[in-house]
Formats: sequence, structure tokens, C-alpha cells
Amino acid sequence: MSQTRQLHLGAFMRPVSIHTGAWRYPGAWPDANFNLAHITRLARTLEAAKFDAFFMADHLAVLNMPIEALKRSHTVTSFEPFTLLSALAMVTERIGLVATASTTYDEPYHIARRFASLDHISAGRAGWNIVTTGNPETSFNFGSDQHLAHATRYARAREFYDVVTGLWDSWADDAFVRDVEQGLFFDPDKLHVLGHEGEHLSVRGPLNIGRPVQGWPVIVQAGASDAGRQLAAETAEVIFGSEATREGGKAFYADVKGRMAVVGRDPDHLKILPAAFVVVGETVEEARAKRAHLDSLVHYDSGIRSLNIMLDYDVSGFDPDGPLPDIPESNASKSARDRTVALARRENLTIRQLAARAGSYAGLAFVGTAKTIADEMEAWLDERASDGFNVMFPWLPGGLDDFATQVVPELQRRGIFRKDYEGTTLRDHLGLPRPENRFFAKAAREVESEAAGDQPAG
Amino acid sequence: MSQTRQLHLGAFMRPVSIHTGAWRYPGAWPDANFNLAHITRLARTLEAAKFDAFFMADHLAVLNMPIEALKRSHTVTSFEPFTLLSALAMVTERIGLVATASTTYDEPYHIARRFASLDHISAGRAGWNIVTTGNPETSFNFGSDQHLAHATRYARAREFYDVVTGLWDSWADDAFVRDVEQGLFFDPDKLHVLGHEGEHLSVRGPLNIGRPVQGWPVIVQAGASDAGRQLAAETAEVIFGSEATREGGKAFYADVKGRMAVVGRDPDHLKILPAAFVVVGETVEEARAKRAHLDSLVHYDSGIRSLNIMLDYDVSGFDPDGPLPDIPESNASKSARDRTVALARRENLTIRQLAARAGSYAGLAFVGTAKTIADEMEAWLDERASDGFNVMFPWLPGGLDDFATQVVPELQRRGIFRKDYEGTTLRDHLGLPRPENRFFAKAAREVESEAAGDQPAG
Ligand SMILES: Cc1cc2nc3c(=O)[nH]c(=O)nc-3n(C[C@H](O)[C@H](O)[C@H](O)COP(=O)(O)O)c2cc1C
Ligand SMILES: Cc1cc2nc3c(=O)[nH]c(=O)nc-3n(C[C@H](O)[C@H](O)[C@H](O)COP(=O)(O)O)c2cc1C
Repeated sequence: MSQTRQLHLGAFMRPVSIHTGAWRYPGAWPDANFNLAHITRLARTLEAAKFDAFFMADHLAVLNMPIEALKRSHTVTSFEPFTLLSALAMVTERIGLVATASTTYDEPYHIARRFASLDHISAGRAGWNIVTTGNPETSFNFGSDQHLAHATRYARAREFYDVVTGLWDSWADDAFVRDVEQGLFFDPDKLHVLGHEGEHLSVRGPLNIGRPVQGWPVIVQAGASDAGRQLAAETAEVIFGSEATREGGKAFYADVKGRMAVVGRDPDHLKILPAAFVVVGETVEEARAKRAHLDSLVHYDSGIRSLNIMLDYDVSGFDPDGPLPDIPESNASKSARDRTVALARRENLTIRQLAARAGSYAGLAFVGTAKTIADEMEAWLDERASDGFNVMFPWLPGGLDDFATQVVPELQRRGIFRKDYEGTTLRDHLGLPRPENRFFAKAAREVESEAAGDQPAG
Repeated sequence: MSQTRQLHLGAFMRPVSIHTGAWRYPGAWPDANFNLAHITRLARTLEAAKFDAFFMADHLAVLNMPIEALKRSHTVTSFEPFTLLSALAMVTERIGLVATASTTYDEPYHIARRFASLDHISAGRAGWNIVTTGNPETSFNFGSDQHLAHATRYARAREFYDVVTGLWDSWADDAFVRDVEQGLFFDPDKLHVLGHEGEHLSVRGPLNIGRPVQGWPVIVQAGASDAGRQLAAETAEVIFGSEATREGGKAFYADVKGRMAVVGRDPDHLKILPAAFVVVGETVEEARAKRAHLDSLVHYDSGIRSLNIMLDYDVSGFDPDGPLPDIPESNASKSARDRTVALARRENLTIRQLAARAGSYAGLAFVGTAKTIADEMEAWLDERASDGFNVMFPWLPGGLDDFATQVVPELQRRGIFRKDYEGTTLRDHLGLPRPENRFFAKAAREVESEAAGDQPAG
């Protein structure tokens, strides 16, 4: 089994399934998005299914939809990621815990500290999904009426990453000697003061928490624009991709892994996991019927408004049964717009048809039986279109249970997905190396975790 | 028992005991400050002893001591409060969880969201200790080389409080109707967009999480300057006081409760809990010997430097065996300086003697047997010098275990401390009302908690 390439699976857990009709599906939990008992149950199911990570999406504003669409959506509210994932760390033992955090609307000292703390609390299971935040209305919640331009957001993100990783390296792994006899708590030679002064950020350090268990929590990235890919090639260890077709996936995979070579990184040190919306049925027809039923639960009022957001352009004035007009450039997410336009052109969809997809889910979907889904996943893996997937469940808990009980065993039978965890940290699950401390590269290999030892469940 | 005034007890859990020698005390856990298994054990002991709250201090920088002092202190590193308290919410059931968060170095949207999330996760046990951050070096970690002036910090804090509480009230308690049939997730009439535009902050809202279980998490305040008292009188529901004598405590108590009347608040809606360092012995002599031994574990190098910080003035050039010179005003914590100067004058201490106290703990201390300690606590309560205490343990776990097994039963025997929790939320423990939603004051009283229902331990 160690010879066959292995799939890695993340679970994209918010907005629950992205699908705005999900909460109305028969058997769904209408409050699944913010009921702790439910989320605990979902995390444990994912862990029993040996997922690499529970991935918590995040937004720093109520989604920018008109109230007529918003009032129909379960995505308006959610737990905050750090508080939720720390709680989940105590009721799970192995699954990785990936939190989304913005480099545009937060401070590197806070981010470095919180991820270090989550990594200590979870004994090495934390990951940071770096986002630059696409929703321009977020700025209104943070004292500004102007969202930073796309290029500036990415330039700041790159510098932010340097600062955060530099802060994680404030202390050598073996800095805390705790010599009771001499009264020496730490060795001052093993403390580094960052003293960063850059274009966007100035941060002195040191961090007031010891080096994370994993050295650095796993770096995840989901941007898809040119700037997003470049940031990923330079920094990411996991990409949550958004290619909608296998051909697109292969091109993306080759592009990003090629960029890694240019910057001198080992392509194996990055796992590309496209987002995939998965609907499982006993037959392909049943799966399609499930999806059709789910889509029918999205109101047209919501669909057209979701479409406007994806395009960052109001198309509600055009003929709903005509084709999509030309869509201008914007300062919001380029890749969301490009993907949506490409979908319309590729499948020759009317605005009405496209709105239905936009209001549900317009990206890569595997809709079929455990076998057809496993076939597709295997093909993506074999053809190097991906290293696994970031799975989105159509509704909860049913869509997740179907995946766990039907698709996972099929993948395991084929020898392309683990039957059990082999290590304890998220880096172990993903086969990623523990980063050297850049300031104490040759320090003792014996990792002293502050939170390790006889700790409880989490 | 409901007739006798009751003590309220918080546990001040970081820096562990404030006492920089604590980690060297026989039987102490040198890593107690950041070992999750240890902290879990401490939280459970406090809950078994029926404490109102576990109070997590916090600082956004490594303490500003010279390296020669710093390297001897266990206070350099700690878990981040929100990640820690969310984890502790899952291993406790009743005890309140108070996190410290700064109004100077954070954003109200983040703060409102995180406390709401912690309150949902803990089913109504969150409290916010509002601090303006005294350590001027914190600014270096947040992109500025200039700490805000004391008055500006407090003006911002006051506005910050308005914004945070306004964001908590974004949604009526019964906003989320989740009408599956009609496809209506929430009632748009029960959503309020804050639209705050103030002198220091501009925040649109709404918050992307439902109203906290407690309406608002409990508001805690620890500032002691005139501006600090005024902020407390206007906003706080708990004060962690810092008066070192019962006379001072009475004056403080009368002053703040008097200020409340002026602003039209009910004085019972604020509990004043001075910080108290408690050392328990079988005899008073044994308790004093314990403290003397503990103090002897603080190096003079640390003591003199801690003293300089408290005074925000370097006195190491003066004769150690002479009296304290006049100390000028500064921009850092006025009350710490005033208290330290007062202690020196009151007990006629030399710089050397004062340094020993500064390096250990210079504030209110109860050093004696369970009986003498209970006598003192009862006297403070009876004379309205306080409504309870924020207890600091001299070392862990021993100092806490002594308190839990000896002092708590004595207080219970006297009928001034609960034998069991009567309610489930921190507001219940403290006898505080649940705030009305300022935008939906007459909304249904039936509180719909997003996280309530069949949730697990936490
Ligand atoms: C699977 C997936 C998950 C994402 N999760 C988030 C998220 O939680 N929060 C967020 O602000 N953006 C999220 N994004 C958006 C990306 O961060 C990014 O903004 C978007 O893909 C557009 O890329 P670009 O900014 O490079 O154009 C996600 C994207 C994908 C594909
Ligand atoms: C018991 C107690 C706990 C405190 N905890 C913190 C803390 O965790 N973080 C912090 O920055 N300041 C803390 N402080 C400091 C106060 O917030 C405040 O800055 C200090 O008492 C000085 O008051 P002033 O700013 O009104 O002069 C604490 C003070 C007391 C008495």
C-alpha cells in the first residue's frame, strides 16, 4: 500500500455544503451550521472515516447578499473557527483541524499565537488556511470603506506569512530548560526576536507561546488567481483547488508544481486537493435525483443574487432565458468570476440555468455511486490532476454518512486511502516534513512539546 | 442561606500565581502555565470547589523585562485565552470562563464574534475581561512604535464596548425561525445592522453569529485609575480590584458603586472582587514560612527589574538599602505605580525589600489558616469592601488544592459560599440579569440558544 499513491481527503465544513438549500433537505439538520452537538458528531464521523482534516471555512461578515436572498440561507451565522476547533480538539484524537484566517483583516501576532495555541492544544493537528478575503463588504466591519485591491491583498499575504512563520520560530524547540535548581526557565540563546520591518507590516516579537508541536501548523491556501497560485507555490503545503474539470485540474496541478520547482521547493511538499461536491446514490440516477431535489430547494431569488456575487456584476436586468453577457473585470475574486463565466460558456447555459447552479454549487461535482465516484477520484489521482479532494457534502448528516459508509470503504478497498491513521499529527497524515526552525536550524531534533505528555483526548 | 450575602470567587490563572518563583516551589508543576493536562486538572478542581469563574489573564507580548529577569520567569509563554477556554469548556460543565481581551490591540468585530462563539460553545459561561493593555511594548508587535496614551486607550475602550455589545444584539434571540416549509431561515425584521460610526471605530455589522446564550457574556474590568473606575461604573458587571487593604477596598467599593448610581445603574449588578494572593497553612506560622520560602525563590535580579516595571521608572541606580525616591507620572499603568509607592510608604520598605515584594506579589495577601483567611474574607464581605475575591494561588497545584480542601469548606460552613451551583450560566452564578437586546427589547423571552439542546459536556 505504501507504493500506490494515496488520496488525501479534507472535509469542507462551512458553509455546510455551500449549498443554500441544504438545510431544507429531508433529514438534514436545519441548525447543523452552529449546533455544537451536531458538529461534534460530524467531526467524529469524519475521524472514524480517517479523513485527513476537518476544514473550517470562514468569513468576517455576513455574506454580501441582498436580504431577500440572505434570509433563505443557513450560511449567515456560524461558530468562529478557533473557538470551535479548540473545542473539537477535545472530542477527537487524530483528525487535522484547519482554520481559515484572513491576512487582510487580522494581525500576524494574533494569528501566529492562536494557531500555535491550537497546535499545542490539539497535540499537532492544526492547519492555517490563508485567505486574503474576497468579500469587499468585509472592510465595513473593520473600520474602512475600501477593500484592499487584489494585488495589494496578496502582497500583504506574502509578507504576513513571513512574519507568522518567523514568530513561530521565536523559540527553539528546546528553549525551555526549566532548570528548577538554577532558577533558569529558558535559555536566552534559544530565543529569537524577529524585528520585522516590511512594506505592509512591522512586528517585533518574540511570540509569547512556545514553538508549535508541528514546528509550523500546516499551511493551506485556496486562492486560484495568478497571484494566488504564486503564493501557493511559494508557501502552501495544501491547496484547496477550485478547478471544475479534470483537464483544468491537470493544468492547474502542473502549473503550481512547476512554479514550486522554480522557487526551489519539492513538489511533494504540496498536496493539491480540489473542492468536490459529492452526492452518493445507490444508482447514478438516484444520485442525480437527489441533487435535483436539493437544487429545487434553492429559491430563484437566491440563485440570481448568488450569481451576481460570483460575477461581481448585476445580471438580473438581462433576459433570464438568454445567454450570459460579457462580464467586466473587478476587484473581487477573479477566479470565481472566471469559473462561472467558463461554466456558462462550456455548457451553454442561460442566465436562469446558471443562477440555479450559482445558488447551489457551480464547481466540480461527483454525482453517482460509490463506484463511479471512486473511479473519478482515482482518475484524478492517476492523471495527476490532484492529490486528493476537499469534499463538500450536499447536506448533513446524510450526505456525509453516505460518503463515509459507501465511498470511503470503496477507496480503501482499492488501496488508495488509509484504513487507519499512521501518525498523530496533520503533517503525518499528509506526509509533510516538520519545518526546521529558521533561526535554530541545527537545534536538537528532540521536539519538546509544551502540551505533549500525559494529555487528555485532545 | 439565600439571606446571607454570598462570596463570589474567581480564580486568576495566569501568570500562574503572578509569583515568578512559583515554578520552583517543591511539588509545583514547572510547566503548569502551558500544559493542557495540568490546566484541565486545575479547572476541574476549581469547578469541584464551586468557583464562579476560571479567569484567564492575557498579555499580547512577552513581558517587558530585561532578559536577565525574563529568563527566570515562567510567565513568558502561555496558551492563548480563546483557544484554551474553548477547550476547557469541553472538560467542565458549570464553571465560568473569563477571557481577557484588549480594546487597544484588537478589533471589535473579532472580539464580539469570539466571545459569542465561546458563550455558545460553553452554553452560557463566557465573560470578557476588558483591558486597555498596560505594557507599552505591546505596540511593537502591532505595527506601531507608540503606545496609545492612557486617556485615549480608555476613550477607545468605552466606544469599543458600545460596538461589541451592539454587535451581540445584531440578532433578536428569536431571529432564527428556520422554517423549512417556506424556506425562511431567519426573520429579516429581527436582524439589526449596527452602522456604528464613532470617533475611534467604524463598524457596520451585523455579527455573523447569533446572540450569545447569556445575551451578552459577563463584562469584567480590572482598571483601577480614575478612567478605569469610570469605565467600570458604566459598563462592568465584575471588577477584579487591586486594593491592598480593607480600608482601601471599602473606599474603592463605595466610590465605584456610587458612580454607578450616578449613571443610573443598580449597584447589585456589579460584583467587586479584589485580587487576593492566598497562602494556606495548618498554622499561621506555617503559612508565613511557605510564603517566605516561595519569595526566596525569586532572584534579586528579577525583583529589582519587576519593581522598575511596576514603577515605570528605573530605581536600580539608587541605594538598595535606602528609601524609595519620588516617582514621576507616566503613561503606563497609574494604579500599579501608585499601589507600589503606597506599599513602600505604608510599610516603610527599602528598595531591596520592595523589590522582593515586587518580584513576588505586592498586593493584597491572606496568609494564614483556613480560619483566619475565612475571617478576613468575611470581614471584607461584611464591611462592603468586596463581593468576593479573585484568588491567586501561590503555586500549582498545591496552593490551589490547599484552598479547595481547606478554605472553601470553611466558607461553606459559615454559609457565605455555595455548596453547589444553582444555575448553569456565569450570570446565574454571579446573580446578574440577562441583558435585554437593545434593538429588540420586547422580543420573546424564550431564549433560543443556537448551541443549546442536547449538547455534550461543554
Ligand atoms: C475550497 C475553497 C474554500 C475556500 N474557503 C474560503 C474561506 O473560508 N474564506 C474565504 O474568505 N475565502 C475562501 N475561499 C476563497 C479563496 O480564498 C480565494 O479568495 C478564491 O478562491 C479566489 O481566489 P483569488 O483570490 O486568488 O482570485 C475558498 C476557496 C475555495 C476554492
Ligand atoms: C486582578 C487583575 C488582573 C489583571 N489582568 C490583566 C491582564 O490579564 N492583562 C492586562 O493587560 N492587564 C491586566 N490587568 C491590568 C488592568 O487591566 C489595568 O491595566 C491595571 O489594573 C491598571 O489600571 P489602569 O489602566 O486603570 O491604570 C489586571 C489587573 C488586575 C488587578
